[in-house]
Amino acid sequence: MDKIWRVNMAELSVKSEPVPAAWAGLGGRGLTSTIVAAEVPPTCHPLGPKNKLVFAPGLLTGTVAANSGRLSAGAKSPLTGGIKESNVGGTAGQMLAKLGVKAIIIERLPKDESKWYGISLNKDGMRIEEETETVGKGNFETVQVLNGRVTKRVGVIVLGPAGEMKMLTSNISVKDPESHIRSLGRGGLGAVMGSKKVKFIAVDASGATGMPLADPEKFKAASKTWADALMAHPVSGQGLKTYGTNILVNILNEAGGLPTHNFSAGQYVDHDKISGEFMYDTIVKRGGKPSHSCHPGCLIQCSQVYNDKEGNYLTSGMEYETVWALGANGGLTDLDQIAEADNIMDDLGMDSIETTVMFCVAMEGGLLPWGDGVEVLRILKDEIAKGTPMGRLFGGGSEVVGRACGVRRVPIVKHQSIPAYDPRSVKGIGITYATTTMGADHTSGYTIATNILGCGGHVDPLKKDGQIDLSRNLQIATASVDSTGMCVFVAFAVLDSADCFQALLDLINARYGINLTGDDVVGLGKYVLKTEHQFNLDAGMTNKDDRLPEFFELERVPPHNAIWDFTPEEIDSFWNF
Amino acid sequence: MDKIWRVNMAELSVKSEPVPAAWAGLGGRGLTSTIVAAEVPPTCHPLGPKNKLVFAPGLLTGTVAANSGRLSAGAKSPLTGGIKESNVGGTAGQMLAKLGVKAIIIERLPKDESKWYGISLNKDGMRIEEETETVGKGNFETVQVLNGRVTKRVGVIVLGPAGEMKMLTSNISVKDPESHIRSLGRGGLGAVMGSKKVKFIAVDASGATGMPLADPEKFKAASKTWADALMAHPVSGQGLKTYGTNILVNILNEAGGLPTHNFSAGQYVDHDKISGEFMYDTIVKRGGKPSHSCHPGCLIQCSQVYNDKEGNYLTSGMEYETVWALGANGGLTDLDQIAEADNIMDDLGMDSIETTVMFCVAMEGGLLPWGDGVEVLRILKDEIAKGTPMGRLFGGGSEVVGRACGVRRVPIVKHQSIPAYDPRSVKGIGITYATTTMGADHTSGYTIATNILGCGGHVDPLKKDGQIDLSRNLQIATASVDSTGMCVFVAFAVLDSADCFQALLDLINARYGINLTGDDVVGLGKYVLKTEHQFNLDAGMTNKDDRLPEFFELERVPPHNAIWDFTPEEIDSFWNF
Repeated sequence: MDKIWRVNMAELSVKSEPVPAAWAGLGGRGLTSTIVAAEVPPTCHPLGPKNKLVFAPGLLTGTVAANSGRLSAGAKSPLTGGIKESNVGGTAGQMLAKLGVKAIIIERLPKDESKWYGISLNKDGMRIEEETETVGKGNFETVQVLNGRVTKRVGVIVLGPAGEMKMLTSNISVKDPESHIRSLGRGGLGAVMGSKKVKFIAVDASGATGMPLADPEKFKAASKTWADALMAHPVSGQGLKTYGTNILVNILNEAGGLPTHNFSAGQYVDHDKISGEFMYDTIVKRGGKPSHSCHPGCLIQCSQVYNDKEGNYLTSGMEYETVWALGANGGLTDLDQIAEADNIMDDLGMDSIETTVMFCVAMEGGLLPWGDGVEVLRILKDEIAKGTPMGRLFGGGSEVVGRACGVRRVPIVKHQSIPAYDPRSVKGIGITYATTTMGADHTSGYTIATNILGCGGHVDPLKKDGQIDLSRNLQIATASVDSTGMCVFVAFAVLDSADCFQALLDLINARYGINLTGDDVVGLGKYVLKTEHQFNLDAGMTNKDDRLPEFFELERVPPHNAIWDFTPEEIDSFWNF
Repeated sequence: MDKIWRVNMAELSVKSEPVPAAWAGLGGRGLTSTIVAAEVPPTCHPLGPKNKLVFAPGLLTGTVAANSGRLSAGAKSPLTGGIKESNVGGTAGQMLAKLGVKAIIIERLPKDESKWYGISLNKDGMRIEEETETVGKGNFETVQVLNGRVTKRVGVIVLGPAGEMKMLTSNISVKDPESHIRSLGRGGLGAVMGSKKVKFIAVDASGATGMPLADPEKFKAASKTWADALMAHPVSGQGLKTYGTNILVNILNEAGGLPTHNFSAGQYVDHDKISGEFMYDTIVKRGGKPSHSCHPGCLIQCSQVYNDKEGNYLTSGMEYETVWALGANGGLTDLDQIAEADNIMDDLGMDSIETTVMFCVAMEGGLLPWGDGVEVLRILKDEIAKGTPMGRLFGGGSEVVGRACGVRRVPIVKHQSIPAYDPRSVKGIGITYATTTMGADHTSGYTIATNILGCGGHVDPLKKDGQIDLSRNLQIATASVDSTGMCVFVAFAVLDSADCFQALLDLINARYGINLTGDDVVGLGKYVLKTEHQFNLDAGMTNKDDRLPEFFELERVPPHNAIWDFTPEEIDSFWNF
């Protein structure tokens, strides 16, 4: 029987509870958002005793279904001030699911905030103990310590130094199959874990029983259809596997939607120095891996292992958004510098979107020269990692830096940085940025799929027509997918193949012995969005928070001379469902 | 005939307009808030082209009526995100009034933001010219330059280096009769002036005709009654004149409402080292002036000239709030260090409340040791003044520092720092902090008068009873007083003397030939508050912004073991009028 584990940091106690009936059909984002909405007062301080940090594997996490290994975390975000869900691959989610953990809820604050704690979970139960050895240590070292202390196969949810310092750029990380780092990236959830004084959760699934399947045969058949469909689609089966997400540099540059020089242009003259194609060649030449699974069972393999000039590991899981921000948006031209920054952010436990977009705002604010990769690396290593006053400023993210420097062109929605797609030239994603409950977040409703990649039809990126419906449909679908434990990159195949979508339903139905229909999945997505939206309204947000920054309405962006021209009423119609 | 002057920074042009009929009966805060609400889109970026910076003398400013020399500034605040009015004494307001300037409205942004401009006004009209000599200079030097360039009697509205850097702690300053500095302190209005690239407004009232009075005899009689009443009241006639506002250190310490160690206690063991009584003795011993008028015609003379150990000028206009924050709240015990900090903040053009409260948050965040005055001075001089990254962080004020450091105990409402009275132990002022349209601001509805000083009756500071009515009545009255050009410190006498209140009405009526009643004044105050409140709602605020930080509800404060215990519904009832 699955269980809910509660960790009370004020009492330093743990207990397990049966799963309430209302939560039984939920997983991943659907469950974390439900729990946060039910148990966290929306107006509470995100770093105070009333916030809760919730971890939940998806509905299919732990099964052998391809790409189903996601783990969600939820809380009130110290960055956005609203509800937050962030999800990740790695190995811990699958292990939690195998141990029958429906969710972990970390509550309250320790009475003595000078101490740190580690949480351990295995088939015999959960323990919480004071932790000293890994405090202050980077994520890579902490993972190695736990590999030695528990077992090499231990799953790890870990807080880096940025999270220990409660920086708004901090994330929560997990160990991948090679003991490298994947991240629950956005919304400053590391600061919440830091406020709870939890350095890590170590998960040892040794001896766990297999995942129960209500209809193993049906599951097996659906699983094959599902895997075949993912591999048959050109984006998930070829593009992402070969070039990773960084395939998008040249695609967005071609589309004129690659934000450049802090969102003042849409094309980057040096795009070929940072492109996915260049990155692939570099990786191959240096003996790295162009394709790499962030969790067992991932077929898409958008991750990679990027080596330095000497052929030694430099980073992995380097995303388009990271490369874009430091490259096009910040003016760096040396992919090795970007890779080193990516590795440092992995080690410190920093959101590589919030952090890199922040560097561009800092460049605009005059804190460092445009394109100065040496200074970017120095700031990461000598200022942020050490928590100097300057490091604290940079660790605060784009809004903090923008406010401190009097910068007008600060690309944020709900206090969170806008990622790698210009909303004036790719208007659908602008609707997603504006309306998602998460603060600016492309993954919440990835209209790039349809606006740019032609998946699920085509909606002209430069026109307003159809964008609100597109974003709404994708946000609803994504909220469901985020609840299944599936990687968001399954969406390309799901959008283009009815069989693939049916296979996803069959997987869930075969796992639980239920009869979900497509309408049920849509209903789940709507429920998740409305639950999250209500939390945000109760926290004090209004429709004024569903807006892009003013500069998108005032400054036309080349090459299309595009402008953000949705009316407030048009944007607000997003919520008509 | 009075005129409105418009300065268009995009065109670098100026023009005068007749005063619209609807604005004729307004002055000071009533006029700036009316203009901002009418002409500034509430959701615009405060540092963008759509914000406007408005200056307006009060209805009686420029007359000989005692304490009537206030000048208001208004805009959308970059600190609070809402409407902002701030007012000041000094000499410029009276000169503007004498030149028939009803208001100055500075609009849009220069096309070339690398340049700075100076605005000059005299009896022949207004000019705008590029400015280079004073750019980057402190307020004292800029005032001296303009004294030499225009006339020693020039009135000056000036932007210091902090405002040039668009810091959220920056204010706008004016020259006092001795060429020292007074400040339109709160809400980061310096950043707005900095965004407009206006370094100063120089006002030469030479040759201006006298102030027109509809009934000179009545005005003269009312003026005498008014002055006598102010001087007859123990607070305005004796307390403030002798000890300045710093008389409050010992009074609030005695009341247990002196926020100490970043609002974790209500009494300061070293209160006698920073008290008004100690300050008075020090000033007298060193040949300074315990009493000093910030503008011609001020009888209350709460300002002072504070000399250093050698008898040389160190600062003036050092307020209780500044002394409190660095002293009790931050742990400094050397009044000379506090005075030096006050002088530097005057020179840089920084809000001495936002800046000093921020230092205490920074101490809590570990950025400097508690009570380290040497480091406070170093940060002001070497970091903030130079705009280093560390200086930018500190220049961002309490919220920016709190967010960067993960501090929970950040005393702010609507992003603006709470000043020198603990709302748990003096509950009326908590209602003012929570509900005022201005962000936390004691002057908006100074319940200390009644809660602590016994003016206008008595309402027990430790009980909830009567506080909402008290704060509401005072906020309405203050919104009116802020429109007259009168200093807020006339309120003590007005509260306690019906004759004094009638004299104020008589002054306005005799000046304009009208027949305002007490009800009209209340009506004006209500109109101002509702206009401002609606602007804030249209900017995206909700009743959730009318709340104190959570820690006031969670942490009891000694010596009374007091807690903030108003319900949301009780607070919201403030707006039932």
